[in-house]
Amino acid sequence: MKRFILVVTGLLLAVMAMAQTLTSPNGEMVMAFSLEKGGVPTYTLSFKGKEVVKPSRLGFEFVDNAYATYGSYSTKPERPIYSMREGFSMLGSESATFDETWEPVWGESSKIRNNYNELLVKLCRDERGFLLNIRFRLYDDGLGFRYEFPQQKSKKLAYFVIKEEYTEFAMTGDHMAYWIPGCYATQEYQYEATRMSEIRKSMEKVSENVGRAQVAIFSPTGVQTSLQLRSDDGLYINLHEAALVDYSCMHLELNDKTNVFTSHLTPDALGYKGWLQAPCHSPWRTIQVTDSACKMLASNLILNLNEPCALEDTSWIKPVKYIGVWWELMLGKSSWSYTKSFNGVKLGVDDYTKATPRPSHGANNENVRRYIDFAAKHGFDQVLVEGWNIGWEDWFGYKKDYVFDFMTPYPDFDVEALNKYAHEKGVRLMMHHETSSSIRNYERHMEQAYEFMNKYGYNAVKSGYVGDIQPLGEHHFGQYMVNHYLYAVKEAAKHKIMVNAHEAIRPTGLCRTYPNLIGNEACRGQEYYTNADSGIAPHHATIMPFTRLNGGPVDYTPGIVNLKFADQTKSKSKQKRCGQSTICFQLALYITMYSPLQMAADLPENYEAQPQAFQFIKDVAVDWDESRYLAAEPGDYIMIARKAKGKQEWFVGGITDENSRTLPLSFDFLEKGKKYEATIYADGKDAHFMDNPHSYTVTKKTVTAKSKMNIAMAAGGGVAISIKEIN
Amino acid sequence: MKRFILVVTGLLLAVMAMAQTLTSPNGEMVMAFSLEKGGVPTYTLSFKGKEVVKPSRLGFEFVDNAYATYGSYSTKPERPIYSMREGFSMLGSESATFDETWEPVWGESSKIRNNYNELLVKLCRDERGFLLNIRFRLYDDGLGFRYEFPQQKSKKLAYFVIKEEYTEFAMTGDHMAYWIPGCYATQEYQYEATRMSEIRKSMEKVSENVGRAQVAIFSPTGVQTSLQLRSDDGLYINLHEAALVDYSCMHLELNDKTNVFTSHLTPDALGYKGWLQAPCHSPWRTIQVTDSACKMLASNLILNLNEPCALEDTSWIKPVKYIGVWWELMLGKSSWSYTKSFNGVKLGVDDYTKATPRPSHGANNENVRRYIDFAAKHGFDQVLVEGWNIGWEDWFGYKKDYVFDFMTPYPDFDVEALNKYAHEKGVRLMMHHETSSSIRNYERHMEQAYEFMNKYGYNAVKSGYVGDIQPLGEHHFGQYMVNHYLYAVKEAAKHKIMVNAHEAIRPTGLCRTYPNLIGNEACRGQEYYTNADSGIAPHHATIMPFTRLNGGPVDYTPGIVNLKFADQTKSKSKQKRCGQSTICFQLALYITMYSPLQMAADLPENYEAQPQAFQFIKDVAVDWDESRYLAAEPGDYIMIARKAKGKQEWFVGGITDENSRTLPLSFDFLEKGKKYEATIYADGKDAHFMDNPHSYTVTKKTVTAKSKMNIAMAAGGGVAISIKEIN
Repeated sequence: MKRFILVVTGLLLAVMAMAQTLTSPNGEMVMAFSLEKGGVPTYTLSFKGKEVVKPSRLGFEFVDNAYATYGSYSTKPERPIYSMREGFSMLGSESATFDETWEPVWGESSKIRNNYNELLVKLCRDERGFLLNIRFRLYDDGLGFRYEFPQQKSKKLAYFVIKEEYTEFAMTGDHMAYWIPGCYATQEYQYEATRMSEIRKSMEKVSENVGRAQVAIFSPTGVQTSLQLRSDDGLYINLHEAALVDYSCMHLELNDKTNVFTSHLTPDALGYKGWLQAPCHSPWRTIQVTDSACKMLASNLILNLNEPCALEDTSWIKPVKYIGVWWELMLGKSSWSYTKSFNGVKLGVDDYTKATPRPSHGANNENVRRYIDFAAKHGFDQVLVEGWNIGWEDWFGYKKDYVFDFMTPYPDFDVEALNKYAHEKGVRLMMHHETSSSIRNYERHMEQAYEFMNKYGYNAVKSGYVGDIQPLGEHHFGQYMVNHYLYAVKEAAKHKIMVNAHEAIRPTGLCRTYPNLIGNEACRGQEYYTNADSGIAPHHATIMPFTRLNGGPVDYTPGIVNLKFADQTKSKSKQKRCGQSTICFQLALYITMYSPLQMAADLPENYEAQPQAFQFIKDVAVDWDESRYLAAEPGDYIMIARKAKGKQEWFVGGITDENSRTLPLSFDFLEKGKKYEATIYADGKDAHFMDNPHSYTVTKKTVTAKSKMNIAMAAGGGVAISIKEIN
Repeated sequence: MKRFILVVTGLLLAVMAMAQTLTSPNGEMVMAFSLEKGGVPTYTLSFKGKEVVKPSRLGFEFVDNAYATYGSYSTKPERPIYSMREGFSMLGSESATFDETWEPVWGESSKIRNNYNELLVKLCRDERGFLLNIRFRLYDDGLGFRYEFPQQKSKKLAYFVIKEEYTEFAMTGDHMAYWIPGCYATQEYQYEATRMSEIRKSMEKVSENVGRAQVAIFSPTGVQTSLQLRSDDGLYINLHEAALVDYSCMHLELNDKTNVFTSHLTPDALGYKGWLQAPCHSPWRTIQVTDSACKMLASNLILNLNEPCALEDTSWIKPVKYIGVWWELMLGKSSWSYTKSFNGVKLGVDDYTKATPRPSHGANNENVRRYIDFAAKHGFDQVLVEGWNIGWEDWFGYKKDYVFDFMTPYPDFDVEALNKYAHEKGVRLMMHHETSSSIRNYERHMEQAYEFMNKYGYNAVKSGYVGDIQPLGEHHFGQYMVNHYLYAVKEAAKHKIMVNAHEAIRPTGLCRTYPNLIGNEACRGQEYYTNADSGIAPHHATIMPFTRLNGGPVDYTPGIVNLKFADQTKSKSKQKRCGQSTICFQLALYITMYSPLQMAADLPENYEAQPQAFQFIKDVAVDWDESRYLAAEPGDYIMIARKAKGKQEWFVGGITDENSRTLPLSFDFLEKGKKYEATIYADGKDAHFMDNPHSYTVTKKTVTAKSKMNIAMAAGGGVAISIKEIN
């Protein structure tokens, strides 16, 4: 019997070595799948006849689930590894095509077309009879594929553990790469722009500098997705994942001799990469391919690969423009913590009413009222307040379990009165839940914390995950935490609460399915301007839309209009820092760094000192009917025009890296035959991101669809234009 | 300045080498503490002039908390270890004496005297200025001491990590030891009775046999507490811990060359032993010492070292005598799971209403009603039902996260109707929450699960923690889980729910503080009678009251009256097993194995076939005014008399090991001048725990305080007597 099966398998393999091909709707993208010698699943990808992905293997190493983890000092249980990289035979395949246009609750455009051709290949790992399907969806702008583990023939097969996923992305050459280090703990690195072959050398520098920081860089050639690449023959290639649910986050490990990237999943506390139960599937592995940078920015492939909205009622989800008791914390002008009376706080034990308040405590009634007044006066939706709740005295770095209760305000923060005050002025407070990565503690308090928000009228929470994950041994980007972040979003939705998650998992398009996930940080945001020995170079923001924003919005906290910190803080280290951008760069970010949740991050007094620039921040929309990607090169510049949702208003934003440059701007996105007034916020001639960031001009011009102009941007500068129809 | 401090330190050390002694209230127990050469904290203990604990060192290894856990591939953060075992100087000491009598909500007696002398020594670890206090409480029956970490001088010192605790218990010789293996995962071992020097050899056998079982035996000489010892000069010594809260459970590691036991804490996923924040303290380390086994059983030292009751209202906490849809599961007559239709269930996805029910599903309406009827007829308080809720099809061994929801009944279990039916008959159902050790999942559902119980009128839950802990890498007995078990009990108290926790942490007297913790398993209970290749020898139950019950009650599930399984099950492996005890042994357990929550574990039909024996089970009390420990030798026999709470009724229970024996019984515990009728359940002359377990006689006699008799017990047999005043 066994011999017979082997013969049949041999025959099947002979047949299957012939590739199955899949072509994108417009015919330009071609994917081929084949079982190579020995039953090795392999795919290739080409675009307009150019090879994009060379033959690349697909597969895993598994271990059985049904073993004890420990054992005795004399008999440790072994988990035999078994290969899921070879020995497959083809059971069959299915093809399909799909074309729909859907409307996001919020987004860069009000309609998104989702059009692909699909191939499902059905494989069997002969040795065990394990069934594995691979589903490919080919778009005109790229490929998505995922591993599907259908119902197995036995319970034993249904449960399995991923020792490693081995999904290859074999590149055709030593492309330019726009990358940050692969890391289990943080995404807050500055983007590097190097050849793939230079990653190893650059990584050494980064790795040496991190010291005791909360990082876990795992390899000299490991990078995070979304990874933007550019080939010498002009292709823009992006590797990422979509719909990361109940699975470990994927990094890419480069073999810099062969130019092959291989998936590297985030491990759990035992070093395993995933505990799965069939039927289930991996997230989508994605390869976006375009022949221009602008087309790459326009791609909706990641959102399209996510499931449709899971919420029945989304009427309560609203884009948010907000200010906050926040930048003053970044500048070191004020403090999250209320007191220095305790050498370590115990919640419920230490009595804050008997503690000596710090004069610097930012979240006090008077100061918060000042922000509320400012928000009301200038039309902001919400006021974020950080440091309102007890526990900040020793919140970080101690692996403290019961670090916050998310419900008890400091004595100088009257939660009821302040919310009432805000609501009377048409403003809401924004909740802040720093978890300090004490996950059990957050989940234990979550329901009550959300109920507390409902009670006082909060409808949005900025959550935070600073520091090592507890339970210890788990990582920010492992399956355990991926599950948690989504749990927090889904539980929030039950309470009609929007979530803006900081230090959480990178966006993979889940905001399509759960549009109350209205913000992410997942990046080095502008808070780093104030950090000693770090900062952010201007090119960073020109790469972010290709990478971290490929999958969802980012709360980058733009709008800093006083970019010189020397006079604003007593902190000697922060005095040496600056905003590393011009005012116009800051204004442009509201367009180039898409988010339905945008902060005006600077201090009220700084806005009052810059009323012209502030006017743009007040005017700019946060939700869009349409977006036009006018000019872009990752690492160099970006210029985008967006039409405000439901209005005849357009906004243009452009930024450049550390080099000044002039870009042509055609207004042909405007409706023909109509006249518009354009208010142009441009860098001053002497503007410079380090020396002279505050120089800018504001001019008004009448424009039509035929108008053209050249936009000059200073080094580290930008341009912002608001355009209104003239009736 | 530094030199000066050193000189002073030197002087202090010279002074401190002189011991500080502490004497127990009756003067028989003497503890001496000293700082030995090099500032090493050391203690000794003697009883009636006999040395009990030779000079034994106290201390720790710590690491700083404030370090990142990971790092990069090139720069791993180091956690420097620093010794807390030497270099101490004495800052001072305080003495106190304490004497109170308190009333437990339930217990072996209605009043407990708590009388000790106390010494608090205040130490400073010179190198860092770390403050460490050690508090000793000396009772007439033993010593308790704990490490206290007072408020430190800086936040950095306030947070620390225990790398290892090094508390020594230096024994004076190669005592007899009554032990089970030290293990991070399970307590379900059969007790061994060997010399300390024989532990290593016996452990080899145990360790080899565990195979792939869910165990984590960490060392060839590691044992669990409570550890019972007996010295050749007639002392009974017991090593344990009291009030295990927010700390890792302690095991003991024996140096079998020196006869020194050293504490061995359960590690976390990273291998650390505890994450602490001063002010805080360790649990009590306890050394009970008596010159008779009966006095050891009478000791309340563990309860006394716990905090008083933390619950304001305890009126809802009631002892419980219960039956359950349970033994039929153990016998393999019925199943927890409802269907075989699924190869792995996904809750909320798979539709049970479309599944094919197994005829064997035990928790069906009809069967549960049968148990309710039986409970009502015979006066039982509650009926436990296991397997009532969806998820049992693949609940075990797969590290499944979302394994149960604790709220959705199987289609054939009408939760509303069954509770109503039970309540109308004066009976309650007992809830069952098997967690499969998926801790996050349980905590996510806990509040709703307790609300569900309140809604339907459940007031007690049997919880279970079978399998490897999730989060993976954590252990059943580490700090993370110790915190969880108590969290579950405290949250239950908010809902007026009593908890009977199985596979949870061993009792350390916390039932004094949280008397809704009405039961524990934490041992090899009678379910093992039905297990292939295992079972329980009779001596086990004669050791349990000295060990596992030293700190709280155990749900041992006594009352099996049909001890031959061959005709009761279709399971071939179970047919070969038997109850390894006589019926009278089973009856005696209600007295010898103290618990305020006692099961009548056998099937209703088996009780109906043994109406005489069943009468004792119906009659026996579960709460007591007074207990008299009449005869005992660990590993051999136990005989106890107890007076029912608030009644003129006494019950006597006696059991023996695999040897038949006759024990004298004096009724002098009865009130003088009164007459009582004693109903004596005695082994038949031909009774034997393996061959003839069902042979017993029931006789009635009039007895007074002057009565005496000899009680003959068969091999693996026992005696049970109920005594009522004759009016």
